[in-house]
Amino acid sequence: MGRWGPDARGPLEQAAIDLCLERGFEQITVAEIAQRAGFSERTFYRHFADKPEVLFGGMGYLRDHVVSLVTGAPASATPMEAVVTAFEQAGSDLQVNAERLRQRQDAINATPELQARELTKLAHISEAITHALRQRGTSEHSAVMAAEAGTLVFRVTYGRWIAHPGRHGWTALFHETLQDAGTVFSGVSPLTPHP
Amino acid sequence: MGRWGPDARGPLEQAAIDLCLERGFEQITVAEIAQRAGFSERTFYRHFADKPEVLFGGMGYLRDHVVSLVTGAPASATPMEAVVTAFEQAGSDLQVNAERLRQRQDAINATPELQARELTKLAHISEAITHALRQRGTSEHSAVMAAEAGTLVFRVTYGRWIAHPGRHGWTALFHETLQDAGTVFSGVSPLTPHP
Repeated sequence: MGRWGPDARGPLEQAAIDLCLERGFEQITVAEIAQRAGFSERTFYRHFADKPEVLFGGMGYLRDHVVSLVTGAPASATPMEAVVTAFEQAGSDLQVNAERLRQRQDAINATPELQARELTKLAHISEAITHALRQRGTSEHSAVMAAEAGTLVFRVTYGRWIAHPGRHGWTALFHETLQDAGTVFSGVSPLTPHP
Repeated sequence: MGRWGPDARGPLEQAAIDLCLERGFEQITVAEIAQRAGFSERTFYRHFADKPEVLFGGMGYLRDHVVSLVTGAPASATPMEAVVTAFEQAGSDLQVNAERLRQRQDAINATPELQARELTKLAHISEAITHALRQRGTSEHSAVMAAEAGTLVFRVTYGRWIAHPGRHGWTALFHETLQDAGTVFSGVSPLTPHP
């Protein structure tokens, strides 16, 4: 018998992660994930459109959170200030789930289909930020650049953070990565080809 | 009857693009693509591992070209100089195929499966650049940042260029995008939260 409630998502995700790490994503079924979590297959599909989605509910939440922070940023903030402030804050909230996120990343990194889904979700986050900036009056040109640049900093910070769980706090890592990105772009230009 | 030769890839790609734009990627088969191009299905699979790959042969070539330029950059070049010089040069070569690439992008943008494949290919290019930089002695930390930052500039430049074919030369757009990225990162830091 399936139960119905907002608390099904977490247990379904944890069951999927556990089963992925035990047997690999391709080898497991939605029925098995649901059974492991104590829910019905029907409950699974109430929450997730397909099998991979069970690992990406958090990224939908992250997208909504970042977009809401960008939308609520002070009018005086530049587009990039709004975006990096949003990612710094939203990313900080991930820390309470560090252990689950590390296991989840191991499952994703072992499966090309999940890696592709992760890239798609990140692209959707960047597109949603672009849209939110456009609503604030930012030009398309500037909105795309700020969204892409902010998402880059988030992605690299996340990679560094997940690789060393507990060693570094999110906020310090985020600032360091933002500074690294500024340094790498500072004054760089393509070399002149040899004549 | 299938023919065999390096000149099968271009015609197969063009046939796939044409069929995508006529009927949509999901609606067409490998057999139809091969037939439209005048080749056998077997020839198709000699060149491409699956149906989506027919649209991404050029990205494999781009990856190899960029990696070879990064590897051959002068020892005095910084990692980021090596990467942006490589993308500027390799991207410039895309201009001769502008019309085909624009049609190809229309086909990709209409199909989530192809958009996901494109993101995966871009991630592979960034990973291959990271590897090439590591071979040059760059630390993992710095190699990831330069590869991700350079790939960002390429991706945004490509988006701007493909949206306005013929209006802007690749090199000018690439320099402008690189400057935009530098500006967006320049001196930015997250806003202090309101107390």
